[in-house]
Amino acid sequence: MHMNVTEIDMYVLRALEAGDKVQLLALAEELQPYDLAGVYDRLPGKQRAGFVIYLTMELLTAMVGEMEREPQIEVFELLGVERTAQLMDRMDKDDLAGLLGGLSEERKQSFLDYMKEEESQAVRHLMTYAPETAGRIMTNRYVWIPLHFTVRNAVEKLKEFAEIAESISYLYVVDDEKRLLGVVSYRDLILADAEERIADIMFERVISVPSDMDQEVVARMIERYDFIAVPVVEDGGILVGIVTVDDIIDVVIREASEDIAKLSASGKSIDFDTKAIVAAWRRLPWLILLLLIGIISGTIISRFEETLDKVVALAFFMPMIAGMTGNTGTQSLAVVVRGLTTREATSGLIKRLIWRELLVGLMIGGICGTLISVIAYVWQGSPVLGLVVGSSLVVTLVIGTLAGTVIPILLYRLKVDPAVASGPLITTLNDILSLLIYFGIATAFLEYLI
Amino acid sequence: MHMNVTEIDMYVLRALEAGDKVQLLALAEELQPYDLAGVYDRLPGKQRAGFVIYLTMELLTAMVGEMEREPQIEVFELLGVERTAQLMDRMDKDDLAGLLGGLSEERKQSFLDYMKEEESQAVRHLMTYAPETAGRIMTNRYVWIPLHFTVRNAVEKLKEFAEIAESISYLYVVDDEKRLLGVVSYRDLILADAEERIADIMFERVISVPSDMDQEVVARMIERYDFIAVPVVEDGGILVGIVTVDDIIDVVIREASEDIAKLSASGKSIDFDTKAIVAAWRRLPWLILLLLIGIISGTIISRFEETLDKVVALAFFMPMIAGMTGNTGTQSLAVVVRGLTTREATSGLIKRLIWRELLVGLMIGGICGTLISVIAYVWQGSPVLGLVVGSSLVVTLVIGTLAGTVIPILLYRLKVDPAVASGPLITTLNDILSLLIYFGIATAFLEYLI
Repeated sequence: MHMNVTEIDMYVLRALEAGDKVQLLALAEELQPYDLAGVYDRLPGKQRAGFVIYLTMELLTAMVGEMEREPQIEVFELLGVERTAQLMDRMDKDDLAGLLGGLSEERKQSFLDYMKEEESQAVRHLMTYAPETAGRIMTNRYVWIPLHFTVRNAVEKLKEFAEIAESISYLYVVDDEKRLLGVVSYRDLILADAEERIADIMFERVISVPSDMDQEVVARMIERYDFIAVPVVEDGGILVGIVTVDDIIDVVIREASEDIAKLSASGKSIDFDTKAIVAAWRRLPWLILLLLIGIISGTIISRFEETLDKVVALAFFMPMIAGMTGNTGTQSLAVVVRGLTTREATSGLIKRLIWRELLVGLMIGGICGTLISVIAYVWQGSPVLGLVVGSSLVVTLVIGTLAGTVIPILLYRLKVDPAVASGPLITTLNDILSLLIYFGIATAFLEYLI
Repeated sequence: MHMNVTEIDMYVLRALEAGDKVQLLALAEELQPYDLAGVYDRLPGKQRAGFVIYLTMELLTAMVGEMEREPQIEVFELLGVERTAQLMDRMDKDDLAGLLGGLSEERKQSFLDYMKEEESQAVRHLMTYAPETAGRIMTNRYVWIPLHFTVRNAVEKLKEFAEIAESISYLYVVDDEKRLLGVVSYRDLILADAEERIADIMFERVISVPSDMDQEVVARMIERYDFIAVPVVEDGGILVGIVTVDDIIDVVIREASEDIAKLSASGKSIDFDTKAIVAAWRRLPWLILLLLIGIISGTIISRFEETLDKVVALAFFMPMIAGMTGNTGTQSLAVVVRGLTTREATSGLIKRLIWRELLVGLMIGGICGTLISVIAYVWQGSPVLGLVVGSSLVVTLVIGTLAGTVIPILLYRLKVDPAVASGPLITTLNDILSLLIYFGIATAFLEYLI
């Protein structure tokens, strides 16, 4: 009952070695699907075949639902054609569509051929929806009832589909064309009399989403309205599936990770398990782009070689000014990118935001600029140098803040994901701007600096 | 039925002006609580009092549950003492505890005094839990039943508490000391016969969480196991509340936004509505810290003034090298910080990760270093300069990658949130390291450079 992970693994190994199916199943039944997948994952390769062969179809279905693509395919191969087909018939069709979507055409076909005609039709249909839409993440594991049912009829249908009805707490009421008419919660069924008509107790003002709605918008809706599930409809209100809150949590986590990955220009699919060569390959395009942009800052400095040659001390403050401009841009960027994912950007909001960031830039610039003026004066003993460095920092901080605000908003308006204006990109652009401004101001005051 | 936001607002205004309570309620009943809160938000100030006075207690409770703290308090003030007390008695106690937690002691006290003894006790109790723990976000709106109940008894109790039982689909089974013994889903109730004993149909292997568990850990558990709710227990397994999935979605979103804010060093609570002065104030501490660190890079360059004076071309590549090192560090940092929020870091995992990032650094460094060597050689016509710039970039990229990996891991090990090793901080530290390396290598080869 209260075994830790090592004890569970030992228990499973012993049961497998003794060929004791009863013992193995007794434990497996106690485990959550996620933990069962963990056990499989930690088993030595040669024990895995025995393990999946002992498990019941119900346990297998639950376990496979919690796995990543690679172990899923391994399990399919261990099970052989016939049991895989049974398993796929039982799997969540949205999971299966996601799984098959990543395979080669040939392999996908061979898997679909295993399945019952009806079930493979369902998967094929799901795969016609664009990725990251409601249609792609919806499930067909829900129970629907016709309008003329009584509560008693509904309970009977529920008994028949008990397994499917496990996770959702609603029955969906449809007409002959499967148009969504209403929804009845399990609670309503419990509270009603057996002879009451579904039509009288159902909730009619159901909020549904079209199958092509972006998954992020669905997530925002479920989050706002505290839904457990939302029905998905096609043209004319035909019910085609439901999106459940557990899939939405995954969407929210994945989208946040993608935002962070894009903000840091690290490519959206690097995690702890990514191989070094793959990670390097995904990061390189950005780095090479940034390298080439970095050359531009080099050419800018070379234009001001004369100025720099006369006042070498200017070089001392160069990285600080470039760095500060980049940092303040990153700060603004993060606020904007994250804000845009949770809120609609009206032009009123955008105007207010740009105005605010301008004020923020002025305040930050004023304080940091004054501070560095004093430091530069005390350090190098030149009031003019202090003035040049300080006033440059004011200007670059204001521009850096605005760049970090305006660029992602522009991208958003152009329907480009604002997060591609990654931190490194903004930083590098701000580097260039800040060098131009710094050396421009320094050159203007050159005669007083020498 | 299908009005847009403007039509809804117009409708409400007309009903309020006509004093037509029936019309107003007819619409309000159709709206989702979140949308009702939106209507309130957009109403002119002088119409708000009329609006909240017309709403039923049930609608008010639902609406207030979707509001931010400030409008909530405004509603309380519009309602007056007596109705506020009624409202607070009905509100989710976790929401109320959160609301009151942000008020002054005196104001909190006056609100608590309004309430029923029993309800204010519940709120006071919730407020004793630390923020961001299961205890703080749990709700007491669930139905519990004793072990000796039959299905019929359970259904009767459910009818009695129908309003509370709305959103959750489980009954919690407890003993005389309120120790959690099992759970029964509404589905189980529907499928069972009326005379069956709860003890026979309940699920006993309930996963529960202690009340002091961090909300992020609770979120991870709900996400893994696809739960709709998880019971919260205190010492000895005493049931004290449940955490529901809708609160968990909010936790997940908030934590992701905090990660992004920390990674960009922008302070965790800046959003579109933050005032300019407040946003500037929150960003300044980081910027000033980074400014001071930036001075260090200035002093490093001043140490190499002689080298720089002799080969001014070295300055051309300075921002590029510093920038690239910072960028690659940010990339590694994002992978690590995000990975650590979703996964336990074992020492095996950490070793593998550091090893991988070392390899990534070498590959990235090799390619970018070769590229810049060629560019520097072609541009400045000096093969030695090409070699110095290229080899510096190799070394700084490897070190930058490792710094972006090791620093957050160290912080994590020291139980400090790894996200405080923000992108800007890593960038600035990497600036300094890269300048030291670059000028160090350049000085070593100085005689060949001139």
